[in-house]
Amino acid sequence: MEAELKGMLSDLQNLKSSLSDPSHQASVDHIRLRVENLTSLAMAEPTRRSKVKDMSAEVVDSNPYSRLMALQRMGIVENYESIRGFSVAIVGIGGVGSVAAEMLTRCGIGRLLLYDYDTVELANMNRLFFRPEQVGMTKTDAAVQTLSEINPDVVLESFTLNITTVQGFETFISSLTNKSYSQKKEGTGVDLVLSCVDNYEARMVVNQVNNLLLLLFFFAGVSEDAVSGHIQLLIPGETACFACAPPLVVASGVDERTLKREGVCAASLPTTMGVVAGLLVQNTLKFLLKFGQVSPYLGYNALKDYFPTMTMKPNPQCSNRPCLERQKEYMLIKPARDAVAKAKREEELSAIDIPIHADNEWNISVVDDCDDVINARSSDALPEGLVHELPNADVYKHPTVSNENVDTVDDLEDLKRQLEALNAD
Amino acid sequence: MEAELKGMLSDLQNLKSSLSDPSHQASVDHIRLRVENLTSLAMAEPTRRSKVKDMSAEVVDSNPYSRLMALQRMGIVENYESIRGFSVAIVGIGGVGSVAAEMLTRCGIGRLLLYDYDTVELANMNRLFFRPEQVGMTKTDAAVQTLSEINPDVVLESFTLNITTVQGFETFISSLTNKSYSQKKEGTGVDLVLSCVDNYEARMVVNQVNNLLLLLFFFAGVSEDAVSGHIQLLIPGETACFACAPPLVVASGVDERTLKREGVCAASLPTTMGVVAGLLVQNTLKFLLKFGQVSPYLGYNALKDYFPTMTMKPNPQCSNRPCLERQKEYMLIKPARDAVAKAKREEELSAIDIPIHADNEWNISVVDDCDDVINARSSDALPEGLVHELPNADVYKHPTVSNENVDTVDDLEDLKRQLEALNAD
Repeated sequence: MEAELKGMLSDLQNLKSSLSDPSHQASVDHIRLRVENLTSLAMAEPTRRSKVKDMSAEVVDSNPYSRLMALQRMGIVENYESIRGFSVAIVGIGGVGSVAAEMLTRCGIGRLLLYDYDTVELANMNRLFFRPEQVGMTKTDAAVQTLSEINPDVVLESFTLNITTVQGFETFISSLTNKSYSQKKEGTGVDLVLSCVDNYEARMVVNQVNNLLLLLFFFAGVSEDAVSGHIQLLIPGETACFACAPPLVVASGVDERTLKREGVCAASLPTTMGVVAGLLVQNTLKFLLKFGQVSPYLGYNALKDYFPTMTMKPNPQCSNRPCLERQKEYMLIKPARDAVAKAKREEELSAIDIPIHADNEWNISVVDDCDDVINARSSDALPEGLVHELPNADVYKHPTVSNENVDTVDDLEDLKRQLEALNAD
Repeated sequence: MEAELKGMLSDLQNLKSSLSDPSHQASVDHIRLRVENLTSLAMAEPTRRSKVKDMSAEVVDSNPYSRLMALQRMGIVENYESIRGFSVAIVGIGGVGSVAAEMLTRCGIGRLLLYDYDTVELANMNRLFFRPEQVGMTKTDAAVQTLSEINPDVVLESFTLNITTVQGFETFISSLTNKSYSQKKEGTGVDLVLSCVDNYEARMVVNQVNNLLLLLFFFAGVSEDAVSGHIQLLIPGETACFACAPPLVVASGVDERTLKREGVCAASLPTTMGVVAGLLVQNTLKFLLKFGQVSPYLGYNALKDYFPTMTMKPNPQCSNRPCLERQKEYMLIKPARDAVAKAKREEELSAIDIPIHADNEWNISVVDDCDDVINARSSDALPEGLVHELPNADVYKHPTVSNENVDTVDDLEDLKRQLEALNAD
């Protein structure tokens, strides 16, 4: 359209110079004005959100962050705006990855790195995010198009590549270790990787990079029959890696690609994908912004609305060599880490002036095992006239939530720093 | 742009007729060709998905339903295409309602009725669905724009109104009872209503209509601090209505509207809203397409990844008069319904040739209480080389899942038919 308009202007110029009658020349000028007007109409961008310098908590309709900054006033998050300092990588921009990217974009994450090699097809339209007019575009391009319109504040970097190829693998590693955006001196350039790939081979590659770079990963997966899924947090050396406990659904004796190509296609539902993406990003937010408890493993059985949780220890016979190295390193730092945690607990205890019996040689004391600081804060902060809708989970004690999980959460950041320090050596 | 192009054509026509030199006329014709070319470029619709007559299971990239029809091959759903015969009404097109509408649209639901009176604001951008370029449009218009692009097969009807006003209430009722689309002779014109409104007043109106029209409703709600939510199925007379057990978070002694307007705003997260919408539509699909177990109540505590379930019986002292009437009617049909269920169970039992002791006067027999037909089917149907990813929920028996829930699910459709028959009298 731009070329056509430029051509027209030059045609009009030629016509005008060949005309001698001033009234004819005026007619040509009149038409030229119309062309200029058309040009400005055609070039006009659709109404776009302008960039926002600081996240404001002001409650006005024009503030895209008011409902997020309200999390601070409600006492859920201590410093919401810190989200702008984080980089998250999403590998696989399919039914789960694309929705996770949109959620993080709308939450105002600092920087997103997106990896996929596939193109958008009509067959993807039964899941959220991609639109029919994007058919034929690469998933990375289509995602950048949509996400940059939704929130221009987010720095988007996209990589159209297959991480299971040698070249793709190298670019993957170098992009994760590029620290030009990161303000931290230690570790890699990203704070968290979300693995949303749909095949075993790619998962094993992400797992390998995870263990090599000492990066914390969330794995998300949805079953081939579309009615179950799970998310899993992987901390190199401390929790099971993907090779420690391979999933129960894997292709065996078949080329995975034939499963999708040759008339055999996996089922998928926007509901299951949306729930798994929501649980994934919710745990990502809890991890980055330090609120609530991060689930090390959370399953979703859609047929029965059943959500199993568990903790998976690493396998000392794991087939992944870097995993075994990380396990050794973790065993070395564990005593020091446990001592720090113990000292912290004791300090907290002594701060509370609880009278203890003089003859209590084991220092046994009655402690409330559900001292949920976050919940306490949030209910204090509710505006007058409002009370909590759901009962506190402690009221109906969930059998699978152990105190171990609670420890894991508090110490994730500490552990990460220790791991990064080790890596820097 | 269209007007400018038309004006230019007429200007060129006038100029040409005033010129006598054939070479000048040829120049004008050349420019006219450019304008015609531009016109066709400007009028070209963006690539749109064409309507699809039948849902095909063919595995090709151009089939928007292949991944949904695969649910049949996987043994999850018996007749997926029956989804085209259903009408679902969504009241409130906010953070939950809009995502629910998109999920149902992508699933190929037959007809959607959308109700909202609000307009899109930048302050909504922290939740999924609406885009910045839609700011200023009514939520209903913006939703119809997006949804019709995503799936032109879905019949969309939108109502820009406030159901808490007298006129809005009347239009709401008449739209629900309009049976011109429905092929069924009994009941109303819709199969299910999803209440996704964000205030107590509107919920009470939806509840009232629910009880008046004997319609099955799902309520979805998210707390003001954005970290918990729930969905609840309401079957008039059988389960608690909204007035039987009002929620624990309600405005008390404050005008609800001031909560949002005067500098006090509720927090919200795309994650919590997305999870609640996903659970809501998943249970809607299970209900309409008859697979899995429909949850009568499912909560989501995001801080602890805790998902309480429960069944709520109606309150004999409910303040809602139509609810009390429905309770009486239900008590009348319950014995017949229980007898049918019992006969069905006995028939199934006798079909299985279990030897029973001759001296077993109570006919006590050992029965597997988790005879999950659906799970059995689905694992049989998995392609060779694949096994299930998540353990069957029965392996880790969830304490809150009672057998009563299982009964509820099987009989929902039966009950609905009976209720509709009563209503028709």
